[in-house]
Amino acid sequence: MNAPVSPIERLHLELPELDWITDPGRIARLSQDFAWFSPVLDRQLKDKRADAVVRPRTEEEVRALVSACARLSVPITIRGSGTGNYGQTTPLAGGVVLDMTGYNAVQWVRPGVARAQAGIRLGELEKHAKASGQELRCIPSTYRSATLGGLFGGGFGGVGSINYGPLGAPGNVLGLRAMTIEPEPQIVELRGAEALRMHHLWGTNGLVLELEVALAPAHPWLESLVVFDAFDNALAFGNALANAPGIVKREVAFFASPVPDHLAQLAEYLPKGCHAVLSLVDESSESTMLELLQAHGGSMSYRKTAEEVRKSNRTLMEFTWNHTTLHALKVDKSLTYLQSSFVPGHQVEQITAMEKLFAGEVLMHAEFLRNLDGLVTCSALQLVRFTTEERLDEIIRMHREHGVRINNPHTFVVEDGKAGGALPPEVIAMKKRFDPQGLLNPGKLRDWPVSR
Amino acid sequence: MNAPVSPIERLHLELPELDWITDPGRIARLSQDFAWFSPVLDRQLKDKRADAVVRPRTEEEVRALVSACARLSVPITIRGSGTGNYGQTTPLAGGVVLDMTGYNAVQWVRPGVARAQAGIRLGELEKHAKASGQELRCIPSTYRSATLGGLFGGGFGGVGSINYGPLGAPGNVLGLRAMTIEPEPQIVELRGAEALRMHHLWGTNGLVLELEVALAPAHPWLESLVVFDAFDNALAFGNALANAPGIVKREVAFFASPVPDHLAQLAEYLPKGCHAVLSLVDESSESTMLELLQAHGGSMSYRKTAEEVRKSNRTLMEFTWNHTTLHALKVDKSLTYLQSSFVPGHQVEQITAMEKLFAGEVLMHAEFLRNLDGLVTCSALQLVRFTTEERLDEIIRMHREHGVRINNPHTFVVEDGKAGGALPPEVIAMKKRFDPQGLLNPGKLRDWPVSR
Repeated sequence: MNAPVSPIERLHLELPELDWITDPGRIARLSQDFAWFSPVLDRQLKDKRADAVVRPRTEEEVRALVSACARLSVPITIRGSGTGNYGQTTPLAGGVVLDMTGYNAVQWVRPGVARAQAGIRLGELEKHAKASGQELRCIPSTYRSATLGGLFGGGFGGVGSINYGPLGAPGNVLGLRAMTIEPEPQIVELRGAEALRMHHLWGTNGLVLELEVALAPAHPWLESLVVFDAFDNALAFGNALANAPGIVKREVAFFASPVPDHLAQLAEYLPKGCHAVLSLVDESSESTMLELLQAHGGSMSYRKTAEEVRKSNRTLMEFTWNHTTLHALKVDKSLTYLQSSFVPGHQVEQITAMEKLFAGEVLMHAEFLRNLDGLVTCSALQLVRFTTEERLDEIIRMHREHGVRINNPHTFVVEDGKAGGALPPEVIAMKKRFDPQGLLNPGKLRDWPVSR
Repeated sequence: MNAPVSPIERLHLELPELDWITDPGRIARLSQDFAWFSPVLDRQLKDKRADAVVRPRTEEEVRALVSACARLSVPITIRGSGTGNYGQTTPLAGGVVLDMTGYNAVQWVRPGVARAQAGIRLGELEKHAKASGQELRCIPSTYRSATLGGLFGGGFGGVGSINYGPLGAPGNVLGLRAMTIEPEPQIVELRGAEALRMHHLWGTNGLVLELEVALAPAHPWLESLVVFDAFDNALAFGNALANAPGIVKREVAFFASPVPDHLAQLAEYLPKGCHAVLSLVDESSESTMLELLQAHGGSMSYRKTAEEVRKSNRTLMEFTWNHTTLHALKVDKSLTYLQSSFVPGHQVEQITAMEKLFAGEVLMHAEFLRNLDGLVTCSALQLVRFTTEERLDEIIRMHREHGVRINNPHTFVVEDGKAGGALPPEVIAMKKRFDPQGLLNPGKLRDWPVSR
C-alpha cells in the first residue's frame, strides 16, 4: 500500500543524511522569534509552524536541500538564532526552516576585515577578531546567540553604530556569497552596494552563505552607568557624550525614569526613580567623561574596566537596544514597545516633547547612533504600556504628527516596517534573480504574495 | 672700566652653561615663523628680533632661565619649530626666545595615551606611538618638524580632525605640566578643561613643559588623489566621503581648480584644470570609496598603500592643510590665503556660493573635519590673489556677510584671530597665575599690553 507522500516527507526520504529536527516541540520553538514583544505580532504569529527544520553543516548540504525544495516547491525560511523581533524567521506558509547555526566557520580575519559563514554567532566572531586587536563594528545586544547572517538579514546595527552607523552604511558589509533557490542552485559573490540589496529583507531575496564585514580596532572599553535626578540633565549628558569628538565610545544609551526601575539585575546601581545613561567609552576618555558628567550634575553608580568586564564575562551591552525591552517585559507583562528615529540634531527637543506628551504611558529608552549620513541622532526603543491595538496605532500616529519617524515593530511585512513604502527596483530584481519561484520566506513581502 | 650690563648680558653671565644661540643670523631666523604667508604680517613682523635664543635641555635649565628672566624682567617668547603662521613665536619686544626643541623626551606611551616633553617633534612622537599600533589623533601637515608644545600653543588640529575634531575638543589633550614665570618658578600639573586654558594662546599664559595626549588606533592608511572635471562633483564626493560613517578615514581635502595646478610635486597626478580630493582612508574602505567615486564621476590618479607610504617616506599629508598654502606660495608669490569655517551641514552650499562670488581671485582649498560639537564641516584655507590690504579686508567682510566665519590669519593678536572677541575670564585668570609679571610673549594679547 502506497500512501501519497507529502513534499516534506519526500525531502526527508531524499536527504536522510541531513540534520533534521522532527520533534514537534523543537519545531515549534524554532519557528518563533521574539515577536512576542508585540501583542499584535504575537496574536498573528504564535501558531505558525514549519513542517520541518533542518540544520545544514556544509555548503553541499545547503545546496542539496535548496535543490530539493526548489524541485518540490517547498518554502524555505532562513533562520539564524531567532533573536529578531518582527517574526523574521517565522514561516507563514509552513515548509522548511533552514537553521543556519551549524554553518558557522570563520574563513579569515585580516586587518580591518573578517569573513565567516552566515551561521556564526557574533560573539564567536568577535572573539576571533579580538585575537588581532579588532572587534565588530556594530553588534546587537543579542550578540552571544545572534548570528552574522541573522544580523544581516533581519537586524539593523547596535552597539558600535554610534561610530559606524547602521550595518547598512556602505563600508560595513563588504561582500557576501549567496545561493539562488533553483533546482540547480547558483552560487554568486556580491560586492558592495549589490550585497546590500539582500540586507534587512528577512531572507526573502537570497540565501546568504558567507559574509565579509569590516572590523573596528578594539578598545579597552570602560562600562558605566551614570544616574541623574532630572530627565533634562540625563538626556543632555547622553547627547553631549554621543557627540563629543574627543571622547571615544562604543555605546551611549539613555533610559528615562521609570525605565531603569525595570532593569532588575542592575537594581543596586539604579536608584528608584532615576534617569540613567549607560555607556562604553575608551578607558583613556574616562576623565573627560567625568568632567562632562560633573557639568551635568550626574553621578557614576557602576564602573567596570575592560579587564573587569572580560574576567566577569558580564557586560552592560546586554542591557542595551532590544535587551532593555526584554528585561523590562520580563518584569512587566503589560509592556510592549515602539521603535522610532528622530531628526538628526533635533533628537533632544523631540524626545523631550514626546516625554511631555506621553509621560507614564510611553517610557523613553533612546540609543545614540550615527545615521546613514553620519549624523548623530537617536533610535528610540520606547516601552509602551499596552492597552489596545487602537491606542497603539494612535500613539504611532501622534509620534508621526510630531515629525518622529516610527519604524513600526508591530508588522511582519518588510515594506511596512523599517524600509517603509515600496521596495526599490534593484531589490525586486534581486528577488527575481535569486528566488524565481518565490519560495523564500513567503508572505513577508507585500508585493510578492505566497501564491506566486 | 665697568660698562653697564644689559639684562641679556646678565643672563648670559649668570647662566653660561645654557645652550645660547648668539649668531645674529640664527637669532633672526629663530625669531620668525611662516607669518610671511600673509603680506600684512610680513610687513609687521619681518624685522622683529629676539635679543637672544636659548635652547634648554632639562627642566632645571628651563627653571634657571625662567627664574633669571623673571628677576631681570626679560620677556620670554616660547618657540617650538616655528611652523606657525600668525607670528606666534616672533617676539615683539625682544628678550629671549625659548626654543623648546631640545626638551623632547617621550615619557611614556600607554594604550590610548602618550606623555612627552613639549619640544618633541610630532613625527617623532607618532613613531613612538606606532610601535604599539597607535598614532596621534590629530597632527598638522608640518608634523615632521612641528613640536607637540607648538601644536598645543599655536596650532589647531589637522590630519585626523575629521575624526577627533580640533585638538581643543575635550578628550584629546588630557593634561599638562606647566611652569609659572616667577623668580621662584612653580611647577603645576593641570588636567582636562583646566589644561585647555593654555591652548592656542601663543604661549602667553603659561610655559608648558609636558603634554599628555590621547592616541588613536593606527590604521593602514591608503593615500589617494582623485580628480574630477566638475567642481560640484568633486565637492559632493569629498563631502560624502567625509560624512560616510562606514568609511574609515584620517583626512579628506578638497582642492578646487586651479589649486591642484599649484602642487608642482604632484603635477603628474593632477591634470591641468582638474578639481581634486586628497584622502587617507583605511585600506579596507577602499572598495567602498571607489563605489562612491564612480557614482560621482571621478577617477583615481594616485594611490599608495600604507606599506608603500612607509617605504617611500613620502606622504600626501604633506600636501594638506597649510602645506597646500606653502606649496602654492612657492610657485606663485602673488598669493596669500584666508582661513574660514562654514556652518556644519551647509558647507557645500556655502563653498559653492563663495566660488561663484570669487572665482579666479579666491581659490578654494577646504579641509573636512569635525567641529568641537562633533559635526562634520569644512575649514577652508583659501588661496587669495593678493592685490591690496583693503581688498583683502573687503574679501573677508564679504565672506562674513554670507555667513562664512573668517579666522583672520592676518593678525598676530590672539583675540583677533581664531578665538575672536574677548578672552574668557578663566584664561585671564591663568595668565595672572602663571605670568604675573606679563613677560610671556608680550604684545600678543590685546588686553595685556607690553607695558604692563
